[in-house]
Amino acid sequence: MVAASSFITSLLTSLLVFIVLVLVFAWLSRRASNKYVYYPALLVKGRPIPDPTQTRSPWAWMKEAWQATEDEIVEVAGLDAAIYINLFTTALKIIFWTSCFCLPILIPLAVTDKNNKLQEQDPTKSANFTGLDDIAMGNIQEKSQRLWAFLIGGYWLSFVTYYILRQTYKHVIELRAKDQSDIRAKPEQFTCLVRDIPPLLKNETRSEQVDTFFRQVHPDTYEKTLLVTKLDKASKLWTEVETAKNKLAHAEAVFEQSKTKEAPEGERPMHKTGKFGLYGPKVDSINHWNEQIKELTPKLQEEQKRTVSEEQQGAAIVFFNSRRAAAEAAQERHSAFSDRWEVLPAPEPRAVVWDNMHVRFYQRLVREKVVYVITFFTIVFYMIPIAIIASFTTLDNLTKILPFIKSIVNIPALKTVIQAYLPQIALIVFLALLPKLLLALSKAEGIISQDHLVRAACGKMYYFVVFNVFLGFTIFGTLFQSADSIDQLRSSGQFSFNSIVELFGASLPPNATYFITFVALKFFIGYGLEISRLIPLVVFHLKKRYLCKTEKELADAWNPGSFSYLPSVPNDLLIITITMAYAVIAPLILPFAFAYFGIGWFVQRNQALKVYIPEFESGGRMWPHIHSRILVGLFVSQITMLGYFSVKKFAFVVLLLPLPFLTILFSNICHKVYYPSFQVVAIEVASEEVKEVPTLTSVVDAFTPTCLLIASEVNDNDKYEDANFQDAESQLPSRTSSGIASPADLPAAAAAAGIGV
Amino acid sequence: MVAASSFITSLLTSLLVFIVLVLVFAWLSRRASNKYVYYPALLVKGRPIPDPTQTRSPWAWMKEAWQATEDEIVEVAGLDAAIYINLFTTALKIIFWTSCFCLPILIPLAVTDKNNKLQEQDPTKSANFTGLDDIAMGNIQEKSQRLWAFLIGGYWLSFVTYYILRQTYKHVIELRAKDQSDIRAKPEQFTCLVRDIPPLLKNETRSEQVDTFFRQVHPDTYEKTLLVTKLDKASKLWTEVETAKNKLAHAEAVFEQSKTKEAPEGERPMHKTGKFGLYGPKVDSINHWNEQIKELTPKLQEEQKRTVSEEQQGAAIVFFNSRRAAAEAAQERHSAFSDRWEVLPAPEPRAVVWDNMHVRFYQRLVREKVVYVITFFTIVFYMIPIAIIASFTTLDNLTKILPFIKSIVNIPALKTVIQAYLPQIALIVFLALLPKLLLALSKAEGIISQDHLVRAACGKMYYFVVFNVFLGFTIFGTLFQSADSIDQLRSSGQFSFNSIVELFGASLPPNATYFITFVALKFFIGYGLEISRLIPLVVFHLKKRYLCKTEKELADAWNPGSFSYLPSVPNDLLIITITMAYAVIAPLILPFAFAYFGIGWFVQRNQALKVYIPEFESGGRMWPHIHSRILVGLFVSQITMLGYFSVKKFAFVVLLLPLPFLTILFSNICHKVYYPSFQVVAIEVASEEVKEVPTLTSVVDAFTPTCLLIASEVNDNDKYEDANFQDAESQLPSRTSSGIASPADLPAAAAAAGIGV
Repeated sequence: MVAASSFITSLLTSLLVFIVLVLVFAWLSRRASNKYVYYPALLVKGRPIPDPTQTRSPWAWMKEAWQATEDEIVEVAGLDAAIYINLFTTALKIIFWTSCFCLPILIPLAVTDKNNKLQEQDPTKSANFTGLDDIAMGNIQEKSQRLWAFLIGGYWLSFVTYYILRQTYKHVIELRAKDQSDIRAKPEQFTCLVRDIPPLLKNETRSEQVDTFFRQVHPDTYEKTLLVTKLDKASKLWTEVETAKNKLAHAEAVFEQSKTKEAPEGERPMHKTGKFGLYGPKVDSINHWNEQIKELTPKLQEEQKRTVSEEQQGAAIVFFNSRRAAAEAAQERHSAFSDRWEVLPAPEPRAVVWDNMHVRFYQRLVREKVVYVITFFTIVFYMIPIAIIASFTTLDNLTKILPFIKSIVNIPALKTVIQAYLPQIALIVFLALLPKLLLALSKAEGIISQDHLVRAACGKMYYFVVFNVFLGFTIFGTLFQSADSIDQLRSSGQFSFNSIVELFGASLPPNATYFITFVALKFFIGYGLEISRLIPLVVFHLKKRYLCKTEKELADAWNPGSFSYLPSVPNDLLIITITMAYAVIAPLILPFAFAYFGIGWFVQRNQALKVYIPEFESGGRMWPHIHSRILVGLFVSQITMLGYFSVKKFAFVVLLLPLPFLTILFSNICHKVYYPSFQVVAIEVASEEVKEVPTLTSVVDAFTPTCLLIASEVNDNDKYEDANFQDAESQLPSRTSSGIASPADLPAAAAAAGIGV
Repeated sequence: MVAASSFITSLLTSLLVFIVLVLVFAWLSRRASNKYVYYPALLVKGRPIPDPTQTRSPWAWMKEAWQATEDEIVEVAGLDAAIYINLFTTALKIIFWTSCFCLPILIPLAVTDKNNKLQEQDPTKSANFTGLDDIAMGNIQEKSQRLWAFLIGGYWLSFVTYYILRQTYKHVIELRAKDQSDIRAKPEQFTCLVRDIPPLLKNETRSEQVDTFFRQVHPDTYEKTLLVTKLDKASKLWTEVETAKNKLAHAEAVFEQSKTKEAPEGERPMHKTGKFGLYGPKVDSINHWNEQIKELTPKLQEEQKRTVSEEQQGAAIVFFNSRRAAAEAAQERHSAFSDRWEVLPAPEPRAVVWDNMHVRFYQRLVREKVVYVITFFTIVFYMIPIAIIASFTTLDNLTKILPFIKSIVNIPALKTVIQAYLPQIALIVFLALLPKLLLALSKAEGIISQDHLVRAACGKMYYFVVFNVFLGFTIFGTLFQSADSIDQLRSSGQFSFNSIVELFGASLPPNATYFITFVALKFFIGYGLEISRLIPLVVFHLKKRYLCKTEKELADAWNPGSFSYLPSVPNDLLIITITMAYAVIAPLILPFAFAYFGIGWFVQRNQALKVYIPEFESGGRMWPHIHSRILVGLFVSQITMLGYFSVKKFAFVVLLLPLPFLTILFSNICHKVYYPSFQVVAIEVASEEVKEVPTLTSVVDAFTPTCLLIASEVNDNDKYEDANFQDAESQLPSRTSSGIASPADLPAAAAAAGIGV
């Protein structure tokens, strides 16, 4: 349990750190040399960046974030970013309306009661409470009539959440519809993915087969098809060529720079050929890489030819002549058997996961099940280490284990700080290790688009954090602290649902303050670092100084990428879940949660507008994911209340029973009414007219894997272009059923491919 | 428990009854006067009926049923009948392959063991067993190694079922595809139902609204729309007119017949105007009904006008110019919100439930939930009366309650018979009362087609019979008989799942013989009555002699209607469930089940080919329903086995645990792969070319509610035709958005309407 003093300390220190970081940001962002760190999005979009000469208030960025409209955000940062910011808006609304009831009514009721005092006086119990505990439901006496107010609070929270979630879902669907009926059509809107193509008949090629089928079922709208091929070999070679080219460019740049007045001929850069240039014979880099390219390029082209002709899979990408036709096809069931000719909307070209495109029906089925089982075990058995951490990271335990730190922690000021932060830091560090694993698991499921991968991993991560951080820390943290609850658990024999709920309820309030500090830490420090971008700043300047020689290398150095949804979304959702769980039991958490999402809202808007550059768009598919997770949070909080009310021996707790069922019902309805809009494009939307129809060729090229584009096309400053043009033409047709891409189109191909790099 | 003697008696008597009934059928069906009872289907189709003059063997019908191909059945009796017969084929296959293992291997193992003897010798137990119990798993000693064979039996049963179900599902889908890609297109294939049409804007009519929307989203394929209207008033009037017409025709016929040589002028029929013609003034029937018609017809036409203009609902039927277009539209999501513009495949015109067409999204949602809850309680609380019946219907109990029957039951022969049948008859009578209730419940759900209503009711009924007849009778029948099981239940404290399973396992074998006689009774007597059609025969002849005067009345008198799926399907499924549950534990049930479905197969094929006339077609939608219920049966049987094995204290019972999960997985896969084909028409199928495209008018008329067709059109032998033709023309356009039906088409309208009557 965290003492009131250390609680206050942690808050103040956090606040201090945050303010410092914001000032640092304000100061740094003014210097022109840092524009690549603080305004990359503006630079890429060619928008004006704040003038470094005139002084800006440290809070100017907040003003700008505030003034930006949602359309502006969609325009600059894409729909996904706008959706992500909607998560903050929604959370703020929910928290605000909940506070309207909980703060003015529940807190006074709690403060004026005296349960904790009575407990402390009671000699049989070894209870000790901090001032914070007195303003929570824990301070209400058993069977007190005041509990009615808290019960009403439970209903208030639930209905506020339902109402606002419904509102937001509608809003988001409209955003998505607007984006999809945009007059500037995107390539994926003319495209479908076909999976589970039945086995070939004799003397019939894959492309003939696909062609015949779609000519028959979509005679007027089907354009052409692009077969999915196994790319690993080709892409390996392609990467080698690319690296060689970059190294060459680098070497040439070095050579140029070495030409000074005193040594006008300069000196040719040399390097060792062994790993990391540590050993092996020293060679002239420029020549070496030139030879490498000369040697590899024909090999690559060989491999490209082989791939398109021999590595064909049972999947294809088909193109239609209108947005509406593609939308229709993607909704339609083509074969009487679902395990044949499955047609689904194509992901955005840049987001395609080529390795998974061809995974067949039954394989997908099995993979999915297996992954779910593994995930389940991951989630459950991470619980043990977390529990141990939770129990060890109290300072006293630590000093027991590591006696040598005693000397440090005897400094009282330091002691309180450590005491306040140690558990949280332990927790945060522990959680930072997970995402990679979950991404890998999700990929094993056979998911076909990057954005879906991220969502799937987020989902797993969310359940992980709720189960381990929230439930795990609450229950086990308590188990290790209070003997009674262990007895309680033992007495109840096996882990029956009731016993868990009760124990859980019982162990909540002590942890309230813990989670409040957890939230406070996360938002002050977390967002402070986010806005000030200290780490990227340092990294960028180091790279710029010592590594980057060519423009390309520099661009890579400052490219901020897109929002890191994977750790952020589940963590934000965790905060919402915690907030909902404590909103009624310890309403004090509400203002902190509000601050978290409030500051988050400003910071993320700023980052969306000025920093991050999305790598691909999912069309707002993140929302249904967020929506259902918020409902899970609400469900958890309702179960929690049930538990805590029954601990209070409140007879009318039964009145809370309908709530969880209401939540399930609500979620079903939303799933029925709104979710489908995120799987497919409604015909009404797809029928909106299009101004700029992309040419078929550009669409096809957008969906051509980069490593199958003629190597020479990708890089502009290249010498082999003309040499390979003939091959390019001659082999391109073999790539698709009906042949594409007259040489005139190849630059377009290059462009499209460029994005994909 | 049924003694071996009474068991044999019941079988023999049943068999006797069956043979007698078949001979009766053979004899009766030869007489020409009965052709309307035994060959209505043939007569309607204008096919040759067996020549009455030459003598036929009593088994000729079996030969014919055997020889008929499936295509023939689809041709004559429709797809649904063919699907229904597939239920028998599937059951036969499953039972046959299961028997191949269970009969030759498990029965010998059981017979050669001696558990029952040991139990009887054991003084502590009051066990008594009949010879039948010795050839069941009950006779295997606890922990015996022989149980391995039964365990394997469990797996054998499961995998046989999976394999055959998969095979059949594919077969059925092909049947359905063939039916839907038939070159003779059906009106519903060009039609969709649109529900949840958003509220009207100002100064816009419903039909304008629908028209505009579909013109926009299906510019090339949309033809026209027919608004759904509230029909109750109109149809009430229409029925009155129809009755009047029929009465008139009847009266005229009576008058004609009364003209004899002696009294050539005949005598005009008179009747009293009061209820049932019991009181009130006596009037001349012919004049009376003529006046009635004259009076009502204009009213009806008034009402028709009013209905189409004022009773419009938020739903419509839209027509497309091609089968493919309609199939596409029915699969597509039209609005970004599911609670607007829901488009779904139109049911067959004759099957439409007009009252439910306009039920709105959220109302459907609520109705569904409410109905499910009610159904649940119906199923659960019917259990008590059933249990009481089960316990009372042993003869000894009966004599206790009704002492006066003692004298009768003292006749030994009679006694055994009664003893054998009493419980079953009680049960069957009890079950005969249910279907109406379930149909009403299903209708309250807001289902839009008759065939779906039947399926929904079947589903509820199935769960009812399994829960009450099978589980209910097994467990409670035992509770009332054996004190041990009650103790067992009491000892286990609350009804934990395990205790139920164990108790259930324990109480199974004693009931095996009960269920065997149950099956035997059902198939011998049941199918005997079915094939001999004694009741319809008597009814028909009585009506013909005393009531029917006009051709129409006669036709109504012999019209056999379609298969009565509602009680049949769930009952057949119950038999399958029982069989699966006992297949391993008491393999003796298998031959009886085989006989049940074998004879059923012959009888139903005969009925399909020669008797029943389907009223509407569902396109084989019954199959997924049957499929999943069979799997439920398998699931129940697997749980049962788990219970019974654990009663036998067999350690390796754990090896049975995977089976229920396998069943769930299998059912999910089937649902994913096959089920969708029954919700929509695959584009591949819908794209097949059509030879006979029905005219738009005929399609529209087919979907026009009969009571909105001009009254005078419906009945051919009618005097007001010419008089009303003008009105007909003038008002028809008002009926739909863009007007239809030039007078030339009206006969078609009449025809289409005729079906609907």
